[in-house]
Amino acid sequence: MGQVSENQFVYLPLGGSNEIGMNLNLYGFGSENNKKWIIVDCGVTFASEEHIPGVEIILPDPEFIKEIKDDILGIILTHAHEDHIGALGYLWPQIGAPMYATPFTAELIKDKLREHGLFDIAPLNVVPLKGKIDLAPFEIEYITITHSIAEPNGLKITTPLGSIFHTGDWKIDPNPLIGETTDIKAIKQMGDDGVLAMICDSTNVFQEGESGSEIGVRDELEKIVKTKKGKVAIACFASNVARVTSAINAAHEAGRAVCLMGRSMVRIATAARNVGIIPPIPFVEPDKAKAYKDNEILFLCTGSQGEARAALRRIADGDHPHLSLGEGDSVLFSSREIPGNERDIYDLINKLILQNVEVITAHDAPIHVSGHPCRGELAQMYSWVRPQMAIPTHGERRHIIEHSRYAKSLQIPASIAPKNGDMVEIAPNGPRVIDEVVAGRLYVDGFSMLADGSETMKERQKIGENGYIIIAITLNHKGEIIAGPDLRTRGLAHKNDDIFDKALDRLADIAENAIKKLKPAERLDEEFAEDMVMKAVKKASFIELKKRPMIEVIIMTI
Amino acid sequence: MGQVSENQFVYLPLGGSNEIGMNLNLYGFGSENNKKWIIVDCGVTFASEEHIPGVEIILPDPEFIKEIKDDILGIILTHAHEDHIGALGYLWPQIGAPMYATPFTAELIKDKLREHGLFDIAPLNVVPLKGKIDLAPFEIEYITITHSIAEPNGLKITTPLGSIFHTGDWKIDPNPLIGETTDIKAIKQMGDDGVLAMICDSTNVFQEGESGSEIGVRDELEKIVKTKKGKVAIACFASNVARVTSAINAAHEAGRAVCLMGRSMVRIATAARNVGIIPPIPFVEPDKAKAYKDNEILFLCTGSQGEARAALRRIADGDHPHLSLGEGDSVLFSSREIPGNERDIYDLINKLILQNVEVITAHDAPIHVSGHPCRGELAQMYSWVRPQMAIPTHGERRHIIEHSRYAKSLQIPASIAPKNGDMVEIAPNGPRVIDEVVAGRLYVDGFSMLADGSETMKERQKIGENGYIIIAITLNHKGEIIAGPDLRTRGLAHKNDDIFDKALDRLADIAENAIKKLKPAERLDEEFAEDMVMKAVKKASFIELKKRPMIEVIIMTI
Repeated sequence: MGQVSENQFVYLPLGGSNEIGMNLNLYGFGSENNKKWIIVDCGVTFASEEHIPGVEIILPDPEFIKEIKDDILGIILTHAHEDHIGALGYLWPQIGAPMYATPFTAELIKDKLREHGLFDIAPLNVVPLKGKIDLAPFEIEYITITHSIAEPNGLKITTPLGSIFHTGDWKIDPNPLIGETTDIKAIKQMGDDGVLAMICDSTNVFQEGESGSEIGVRDELEKIVKTKKGKVAIACFASNVARVTSAINAAHEAGRAVCLMGRSMVRIATAARNVGIIPPIPFVEPDKAKAYKDNEILFLCTGSQGEARAALRRIADGDHPHLSLGEGDSVLFSSREIPGNERDIYDLINKLILQNVEVITAHDAPIHVSGHPCRGELAQMYSWVRPQMAIPTHGERRHIIEHSRYAKSLQIPASIAPKNGDMVEIAPNGPRVIDEVVAGRLYVDGFSMLADGSETMKERQKIGENGYIIIAITLNHKGEIIAGPDLRTRGLAHKNDDIFDKALDRLADIAENAIKKLKPAERLDEEFAEDMVMKAVKKASFIELKKRPMIEVIIMTI
Repeated sequence: MGQVSENQFVYLPLGGSNEIGMNLNLYGFGSENNKKWIIVDCGVTFASEEHIPGVEIILPDPEFIKEIKDDILGIILTHAHEDHIGALGYLWPQIGAPMYATPFTAELIKDKLREHGLFDIAPLNVVPLKGKIDLAPFEIEYITITHSIAEPNGLKITTPLGSIFHTGDWKIDPNPLIGETTDIKAIKQMGDDGVLAMICDSTNVFQEGESGSEIGVRDELEKIVKTKKGKVAIACFASNVARVTSAINAAHEAGRAVCLMGRSMVRIATAARNVGIIPPIPFVEPDKAKAYKDNEILFLCTGSQGEARAALRRIADGDHPHLSLGEGDSVLFSSREIPGNERDIYDLINKLILQNVEVITAHDAPIHVSGHPCRGELAQMYSWVRPQMAIPTHGERRHIIEHSRYAKSLQIPASIAPKNGDMVEIAPNGPRVIDEVVAGRLYVDGFSMLADGSETMKERQKIGENGYIIIAITLNHKGEIIAGPDLRTRGLAHKNDDIFDKALDRLADIAENAIKKLKPAERLDEEFAEDMVMKAVKKASFIELKKRPMIEVIIMTI
């Protein structure tokens, strides 16, 4: 008679444990081969930060989720940032389970479901703040924390083997301006009751001290804007509703009207005004902004990361239809530099400075605070929760490892640093990695999904760096050339370049000769003939051009 | 009778005043329309830091130089870094004037001239340290400074209207390990004699304090390497000979042999050994490294910026033929993160950490110092030189503007912040911009030079992001389709993708219909017919694929 398999409580990150962003976490409970699962968060990450050409959105690979689809009890969302809810529209069909979110988060999820035609299919349950969800064998309790968006939550997840605390994204902000402060009482109570593991945000683990409060930013923005006599633009993330209200407050206190620039800024600020978070003031439409004097208006913009299509970049390039900035005007970056975006941000700042615009960043004045816990806050949270083990999440490898080390230094009895795909046993015999499942990244490319490292991406890199040469030839039924070789190139030096022109002529000759060297039967094997021409031209093109363009040969036979 | 034009002493940056790197400065003396010129430095910048696909090297546009070619008296090189001498091989033919450099710099210039087939044509004069060059109306005097390479120099440039101090790249290092320390006496004397303008390095103007000394790095590297029991790799810039010797010293003190990895590392370390800067120890060839125990060898590598082809990246990717690193091994980054390279560097570090390699960077231990002056050093230099005006160079717009502001705060009577192409009058009526000349960037692309913003680069971006679709069609003399449409794609989803396959079939139909809609005469106008097919397929491809690939139509008529 077989041994009855013991119940296990496991944690499995499928995204967010090799990167900042793309958070997708699973918790499982049951016997080795028969577990029930819940998913915590379902986010994207942005390709702009990783220089993946032609791709904007990256998703966690749902391969493993497909295998366990029937055993997924629900998807619990901690808060409304894109790296926590942004993949729902793409991945929900593969998960198929009901969603749970607090009211503000649910509103933004609804937008996504509508966009992807899922609104009428995908069940979304609205849970009140501090509410509970019963998904036996899991009981989930929302715990109020502070972060850089409305309604951030941690989750206490309880199973028959004990409880864990999944922090979500958090900081300790004694005055977050929007919403309640951290529910320290509930967190301490949870600690007193005993916590198996804390699965915790690692983003700022390299930063000493505390992240600081939104109230300080509000005061500083107000102070700076009051001193300005020219036009003022403030750039920040639209999703930071507290920050948006602080910028609006700074305008109001300086007697300036507010003009919103950027679609997400309009969406979020309008929503915040509609639900009463900010006063019912009218916003100035961008095309009406010119009617205001320089010191009567403040522009609140997206584009703090130097994004190519954002209003701020167009203003810096001098080609925005409704706003130009110059001498006497100021741009405040109430934001940080996301790693990978530095070059774009500095380019943007340089362009503004070139137009004599004053640029003020968080390096110059305290006009930004992070939404994630620095080491001081991590130490505070560990002292409240006192988990038996630390399981860092939401970080690159270097963050996760450093966080694991730091937790050990704080006397947390055990610590583990799983990567995406590592199934970690929490109880009864944790922490240890008991399995590795498929984890990866999918690139959203138009209507297609491309795998990381796919042939498509390799081709795109090659043609993006080296351009292409197309050679088209038509043969008759005897294999004689009756049209072509016709050469076309893109992404290479241009035709008015004499040396290049002559090089192309020689490549055409080489293509023709490559055909002529073949026997008639070989010529009529289109694929073979194309391959022979390609190889001859490929070799010659490096000699002629010192480049390795993609060589595309098309032979048509009539 | 015309007025006799007064002599002017002018400064004109053509590179390095909109960017860090690509330094190319001109000084002119004479009447408004008849000046003699000298060039100070002739460097490149690297495209890897700016994400320009397929391009490695960027040069200053020599358009203006061509105009004044006959009046250029000489090219004076301050030191041997690529951003000061790297463009000589490309641009010397357009300048044609003799070069002047100190011995070490001259050695490295010779390599470049050989590489470009210029060695026998281009005159190169070796000037001793502290030497003088007489190029009337200019007298140039080399002044020893400290930096992060052997033989760094500032230049005192004297004309009948007075002297200026062109600092070159510098810092104040009381113990630079290699070469002499800053010639403070000569600098102070120059200040006593009176200096019209100081044209000064702006790279570190945002850094408070002092850059620190190479001796501190040497001590720290030695200390750290001695504690290690596994394999150790140190990554640094090969051109920093002092740093390279410090790494070799650390190996020596820990009883480790040294294995050099990376072509430039081999070149520089071997040269330094040959001229006696480092002891005559043998280096271990990479393919012999496996014969050494882990604690008997130290690997000295290039690739600290995460460069794709460097040894360190291949080691991190686990595909280096001679070295793999793992648990117990350490990599020391004795380097800084050049803005724009952060993502590549962090990716490299994450890969190493994933293999359980210990990574130590300058954030963890003082194992790097910058070669450029921080604000404390700038203040010190201004107090020695006491110029009548400050003219910042070698910086992005934000550095140059901040440096100009900072100089004013140091009570320098006048300051100006020219950008590339701004001709600045120094004397008699300076500082003021008196002209703007063509300045720009050229991308070295195989054997071609591409202009910034050229059609080629736009095409490359488009195909790199969106891929391409080629449609080839052969028509007979009546305009009837006799072969094709043949479709080929690259950089798009692949053919095993069913939805994609069907989309392509529809695009082929659309191409065929576009031809059929044309009158016979229109069909035989290949260019017109191609354009019509292109437009039809372009529109449809966005609907079918939600991408905007390059559409290339080739119609051949027989």
